[in-house]
Parts: sequence; structure tokens; C-alpha cells
Amino acid sequence: MVTMYEKLAAMIETSIKCGIHLPGEKIASVRQCAQQQNLSITTVLRAYLLLESKGLIESRPQSGYFVRAQVGTLKEIPFKTVKPDPVSAEVGVSRLVLSTLRSIGADAAVPLGSPYPDPSLFPLLRLNQHSNSISRRHQHWSLMEDLPPGNRELIRQIARRYLESAFPVDPGEIIITVGATEAINLCLQAVAKPGDVIAVESPTYYANLHAIERMGMRAIEVETDHENGINLDALSDVLSTQKVAACMVMPNFQNPLGFEMPDEKKRQLVELLAERGIPVIENDVYRELHFGEVAPTSLKTYDKHGLVLHCSSFSKSLAPAYRIGWAMPGRYHAEVERLKFLNTLTTPSFPQRAIAEFMKYDGYDMHLRRVRRRLAQRAKIMTCVVKRFFPPGTQVSVPKGGYVLWVGLPGSVDAMKLYQEALRDGITVGPGHMFSTTENYKNCIRLNYSFPWSNEIEEALIKVGRLASFLCGHNAKRKEDSLL
Amino acid sequence: MVTMYEKLAAMIETSIKCGIHLPGEKIASVRQCAQQQNLSITTVLRAYLLLESKGLIESRPQSGYFVRAQVGTLKEIPFKTVKPDPVSAEVGVSRLVLSTLRSIGADAAVPLGSPYPDPSLFPLLRLNQHSNSISRRHQHWSLMEDLPPGNRELIRQIARRYLESAFPVDPGEIIITVGATEAINLCLQAVAKPGDVIAVESPTYYANLHAIERMGMRAIEVETDHENGINLDALSDVLSTQKVAACMVMPNFQNPLGFEMPDEKKRQLVELLAERGIPVIENDVYRELHFGEVAPTSLKTYDKHGLVLHCSSFSKSLAPAYRIGWAMPGRYHAEVERLKFLNTLTTPSFPQRAIAEFMKYDGYDMHLRRVRRRLAQRAKIMTCVVKRFFPPGTQVSVPKGGYVLWVGLPGSVDAMKLYQEALRDGITVGPGHMFSTTENYKNCIRLNYSFPWSNEIEEALIKVGRLASFLCGHNAKRKEDSLL
Repeated sequence: MVTMYEKLAAMIETSIKCGIHLPGEKIASVRQCAQQQNLSITTVLRAYLLLESKGLIESRPQSGYFVRAQVGTLKEIPFKTVKPDPVSAEVGVSRLVLSTLRSIGADAAVPLGSPYPDPSLFPLLRLNQHSNSISRRHQHWSLMEDLPPGNRELIRQIARRYLESAFPVDPGEIIITVGATEAINLCLQAVAKPGDVIAVESPTYYANLHAIERMGMRAIEVETDHENGINLDALSDVLSTQKVAACMVMPNFQNPLGFEMPDEKKRQLVELLAERGIPVIENDVYRELHFGEVAPTSLKTYDKHGLVLHCSSFSKSLAPAYRIGWAMPGRYHAEVERLKFLNTLTTPSFPQRAIAEFMKYDGYDMHLRRVRRRLAQRAKIMTCVVKRFFPPGTQVSVPKGGYVLWVGLPGSVDAMKLYQEALRDGITVGPGHMFSTTENYKNCIRLNYSFPWSNEIEEALIKVGRLASFLCGHNAKRKEDSLL
Repeated sequence: MVTMYEKLAAMIETSIKCGIHLPGEKIASVRQCAQQQNLSITTVLRAYLLLESKGLIESRPQSGYFVRAQVGTLKEIPFKTVKPDPVSAEVGVSRLVLSTLRSIGADAAVPLGSPYPDPSLFPLLRLNQHSNSISRRHQHWSLMEDLPPGNRELIRQIARRYLESAFPVDPGEIIITVGATEAINLCLQAVAKPGDVIAVESPTYYANLHAIERMGMRAIEVETDHENGINLDALSDVLSTQKVAACMVMPNFQNPLGFEMPDEKKRQLVELLAERGIPVIENDVYRELHFGEVAPTSLKTYDKHGLVLHCSSFSKSLAPAYRIGWAMPGRYHAEVERLKFLNTLTTPSFPQRAIAEFMKYDGYDMHLRRVRRRLAQRAKIMTCVVKRFFPPGTQVSVPKGGYVLWVGLPGSVDAMKLYQEALRDGITVGPGHMFSTTENYKNCIRLNYSFPWSNEIEEALIKVGRLASFLCGHNAKRKEDSLL
């Protein structure tokens, strides 16, 4: 039989391990605790002595009881790379993703699960001023002014921006789209047909899975390293054994893993695919959000055969609400342009022109430097808190850019369950199920660190860590009320 | 051998027949003409006498020579309905349409061929004011605020608008899209798959053909009456002999024919298809532009089985540049919503909200009444000028709403040739080739009458009539310089 004081001690131990109390923090005095828990002073004293004997708390003369410093600090555990089965699968993750996004948006929940960057990072006010001034100059507006490929000035500005980062492109190759979402969709439709097999990273950004799902294609997931991207040997094996119509990758700051594929590997990947005449769709939306000094190269840089279909957007770097993206589809240019026209006719003009004006006059580069600095800082803080407050055995990615952290929880934690439990507290996380057609990441979550660090974020994150601890350590029902 | 005076007479005769000279108009005096053409007075006098003897001109004492009134006025010739072959065809009109639209937009040409309504019909300034005020209130904007199905207030306003025209709808069925283009695409993708056969009107709005082309489906064209729409017997025959996955129609003010399908026929069409369980995509973008007192009904009104996928937009009635449309996809709602999310993630927020504000506060109904009045008036003027200045044998549609006129030229005129010739003069027309997978309409053109009547429009239209006359009557090279 468990005595009252043992029960109390166990409860406090859990609360420490899952981060309700920070190391070094003072816990309730014996008298306070007795009052709160409606227990006798003796019972509380016994429980505290037990915890002290276990090295979890310490008493400091004239001050009270404190959580000991080493408690709950996670050791760094390297990620193990998952080797997916070499079979292609139907894709159907979109309903899960949409319902997750809805819950994130609708409840004004703490957006740890959000796929979007903190809106306050971006100069929406300035962009809107441009947009307003353009709209005042154009009382009438013809739909025909910015027909595909899109607004000329914006295309010129995009080409200029690439040139500035030593990545010369042909402006004639650029096609403006409704976000990168449409760019990826059109590129995929241009190179493959329903039923075709598309090779993707594992885990993969669900926008890629959506594009495959939209066209009724099949995905085959390829082993992907957490530090340098898709495994070329594994990809080569897949290409030798299966008919793959195209490959979709995110070489820079992949969502969710955050890696940056090394230049040499990028070159090898492009060559490997070019040898077999397989087109590759490069989703490069995070390229501008590098933590290093210079922008990484893109696959497109190494493309000699027009087989790299490069897609990007302003949604992560400048204007999330404007929904302006673009494609540079190499030899598939004419087909992608035709599909753009068929898909949405034309991309709205005002946002295109407002972005062009901003790039021309408003220090896009300075804005990006500020964003990068903030994101790099916020990545560090969140990583630190996860390491401290998540259950032992938790693995954390080391993003080189972008704004998401990939967290592998101890194997027994079901991320969907964690997602649902957290949602009850108004907190969202991105369950790993969204990033694969397999069950390989059902113990993983994606966390968004783009928001300014605040008490609310900190408390939410600690709560998620605690929930994860419950889900893995105890399999017990959630009893937070009685815990405190 | 043709004498000089006969040659001159023939030239003047042509110029009268193709409308360079209006009936009742004075032509050059004998002396002037002799000077202009570098001919002797006697030669000119002989030519004029010949023309007078033919009843083409008359001399008025002390005044000179005048074109006689009855000349060049076209008799009304009813359209013959084309019975297309009952075979399905691959669709590939988009390149022609895109290049046509580009030429219309790029050269600031006289936009008789434009598919878009005159932008000055619309309150863009007021809409932009709403948009600006919304953007000032939202310095930060999260992409998650208006996830599919779209902005709630806009959806409510759309439902209210339908209700006001005795067409109650369920707001929960409405999904906001990037223009009707996307709505039609998503609906078609929800009900059919690549290779499927889709029944369409003949001629059909090319946006429908685009949707079919985009998905690699096949179109079968069904005989369509110029006054009341798709022939139900012909459709019934097609359905009995072929496996048709879906039907796409435009029951109200069809583009290009302009008819309004009678209510009873609408009901019959919906029933005919429902009996066979075939979904119908209703493109109803022109419904608000009726010339009659009340708005026509939609197929959706007669839908008992959720098989009518109703698509519409604000692009023809309020805000062409905003690219906001919607779908009410009946029993395919969940699937269309999923596809919307996959296709473009979300529709830009500001334009959605600006339109909602306009509908709430700014007299949408009054705006529409004004637009309708203007369009009805402009339809009359253009019809009148076409009848007067186009070659004999020309057929003209009688639109009941919308803003396009369908003109059938005498069979020997190739509309592509006419389009190209007109373009050399900075005038655009819509060649009939865009509206069919067949060659059935290669002698037809679509004219846009939404622009305010002006000398420029009038002269352009007369020039098109003259070019058509040349192309049909003479097969001669264009010699306008020598003609005058």
C-alpha cells in the first residue's frame, strides 16, 4: 500500500521531471503545501525528506526547499535516421493537415504547431502602404495586365535578388504563382501523371505530399539524414528498382528537419537524377532564412539540363498573407505556364506590384537580416527549453535556418495523442503523422520557434513537455489538478 | 478587260458595302475623287453614273453624291444550330486563348475581343478603400485566419445575396476560391478523372474547356440552341451512347451565345442528369448581369440530390481584379474543400474581406442595376452597328444578359485570319476557334460590348466589318489605301 507521503512525493517528483518546477526554483513551503493539499505538516515533511534523499530537491537554511539543478536536463541524443520501406504509397495526409491548421487558427491557441512564421516578423504595414498607393493610382484595373508569366517588374526584382546572391537566373524562366503551393503543384503536374511514383525525403514537408495527393500520384519515401539531407545511395537504390517519374526535395532548411544539404551533395543529387533524365522539383521557400553568413546554393545552380524545377515564394521571407510565389521550371517552362493559366488564370496584381515596390525601395536585405537574427536566437531558446523539460530520450533537431524544430519523443509517445491533449489546453503542436505516408514519425512533433519568446510560449512548451512525460512515463491518466 | 471607271466603281461599291461610307453619307465630289485617285474627271463621272444606276448612290441637286439609305443594312438571319459529331475529343485550346489574351492586353488594342468587362464599370476605388482600411487595422496577418472554406463574413454575405433573389442556399456549402476558374477546376476534379468524357455546350465557354484540358479529360460537344441552351434530346442521346462522367453548362447568359435557359428546361436538365446520377457543373458567373427585371434561376435551385456543383465569382459583377470566386459543390463539398486546400492552400484574405465590407455597406444592388442598364444599352448599339456594317449573311446573337455578342460571319471567312488582320490595326476580336474542340465555329467571332461607346470603338468595329467583307466577298488582298 502506498502511504500518503509517498503519493505526494511521487506527484512532486513527476512535476519536477516534466518541468513544472524549473531547476533552482523554490517549491512550496511545508506549511503551504500542507494547506494546498489538505494534508498534515508531518506528511508533507516526510514527502520532502524522501525527495531530498532521492536528490530531487534540497533544503537551503532559512530559505526553504529548492529543485536541484541537474534534474530534468536532457542529454543530447543524436537522431537515428529512419530507413523507410522501399514501397510507394498512396497519399492522403491533407485532411489531417487541414484539421490541424484549423485548430491552430480557430482557437487562437499557442501556435507551437503553426507552419507559418510569426506575422509580426514582416513589414505588412509597409507592404500595405505600397498596395494602397498602387490601388489609388489604378482606379480601374484590367485582369489582362499581369497575365502569366506575371508582373514584369516583380519578375525583374526576383531575378535581381537571385543575382545578388551569386545565383544568376533568366528572368524569362520565372512564372509567378499563388504561393509556392501552386508553383509546386504546377511543376509536378508538368512532369508526371496520375499513378506515377514520386521520390520524396523522409520525413517530407507535407506540402510536397499534398501536391502528390492532389494529382493522385504515389510517394516513395527515401531515407533522409538529419544533418545533410536525402541519402544518395538510398535514392540511387530506389531509382534502380522502381520507375520514378520525379523527385521532390527541399535542400535548404528542410521542413521539418532543418538541415542544409552540402553543396557537393547538391551537385551529386542533380547529376544522379540528370543521368537518368529524372526531373527534380526543388522547394526552396526557406532559402532566405539562413542562420549562416551567406545564402546556401540551390539545386538549380547545378542544373545543366533544365531538369530542376525550382519553386519559391515570399510567404516565409516577406509577405505571408500575400500568397505570391514563383516557379523556374527549366525545360518545362511552357508547360508550367500553360498549367498556371489553366489553374487560376492569373495571380492577383496588387500584391505582386506591392512586393516589387518593396523590393525596389525598402531594404529587403536589411529586413531579412533582422528576421534571420531573430529566428536564430529563438531557435536557441526553444531548443534549450525542450532539452530541459521534455522527457529523457527526447531527440531535438539542430536547424541551420528556417523556423521549425523537429522533436523525436521517446517511442511510446503517440504524437496525435499529445496533439489532442495539448489542444485541450489551447496549445498546438505539429504531429509527425503529417510528414509521411508511413507510421515512422508518429512519435515526433514539429515545433514553431518563430514567435517572440514569452511567458505564454514558455509555459505552453513546458506543458507540452510535461504531457509528453505523462504519455511516455506513466501511461497514467492526466491528473494535473491533483498534481499541484 | 476592266476599264478604269469600272475598277473605280467596284472599289467604291466595296467601300460602301463594308461600311466605310454610312448610308446617307456624302461621298467625295467628282473633282475631289479625281484628284485623290489621280484619274480624269470623265472617268470618275462615269464610275459615279454606274454606281447610281446600280442604286448604290444618288446625286442630290447642288449637293453632290450620297450613299443610298438601304445599302449595307443587314437582314436579320437566324442562327443555324450546329449539330456536332457525337465524338469526344482531346482539348487543347489554352495556348490559343492565352496568346489571344496577351495580344489583347499587351498592345492596348481596341478590346472587342476581351473576355473581361470594362473595368470602369466597377467600384474598384471603393473596394480598395475597404481593402486599405482593413490592411491598416491588421498590421500583422496570419495565413490561418481565412483557411478553406474561406472568410466567414464573405460567405455569409454571398448566402444573403442568394437569399435576396429567392435562392436560399446553405452558407456551409460555400467554398471561396481564386476566381471561378479555380472553382470550376476543383469541381471538375472532384467528379471526374483524367480520360473521362465531359459533356459541354457547343459552342462552349473556353474556361470550361480549360478545366477539361487541365485534367487531361475529353470533351463531347452537345448541340446548343442560340436562344434557350443545350438541346436536351441531343444530350440524352449522348448520355445513352457514351459514358459521360459529368456535364458542364452555363445556363444563364452563356458565353459566347448569351442565351438564358428557360426555367422549365433547367428543371428538366437537372432531372435528366440526376436520373443517371451524373453531376453537372454550373458556371453561373453572369447571373447578376441580367437585362430582364429579375435574376434568372440557377440549375442549383432545382437540385434535389446534391449533384449540381454551382460555381460563380465577383469577377464579372463587382471586382474583376480581386480574383474571388466560390463553389457550392453539393454532395462533393468535402472533396472540393480538400482540393482547394491542396491547390492553393488559401485564398488571399484582404480581397475577401474588402468585398464582404462592400456588400455590407455599399449598395451592391444599386451598383448592379447601373451595370445592367449600361450593358443592355451597349448591347443594342453594338448589335445595330454590326448589322449595318458587317457583310451580308452575317448572323448576330441576341444576348439576354452578360456582355458578349456572338457573330457568325459568312462561311468563307476564317475568324483566325480576321483576328490577325484586325490585330494589325490594333483591334482585337475573339476568334470562334477558342470555343470548341471542333472546326464548327471558325467563321464566328465574339465581340465584347461592355465598353462605353466611343468613336474609337465604333471605328474599330466598322473596320472589322470591312475586313470581314474583304475576307468573304473578294478573297482579294487587303487594299485599303487604294480604296479611299
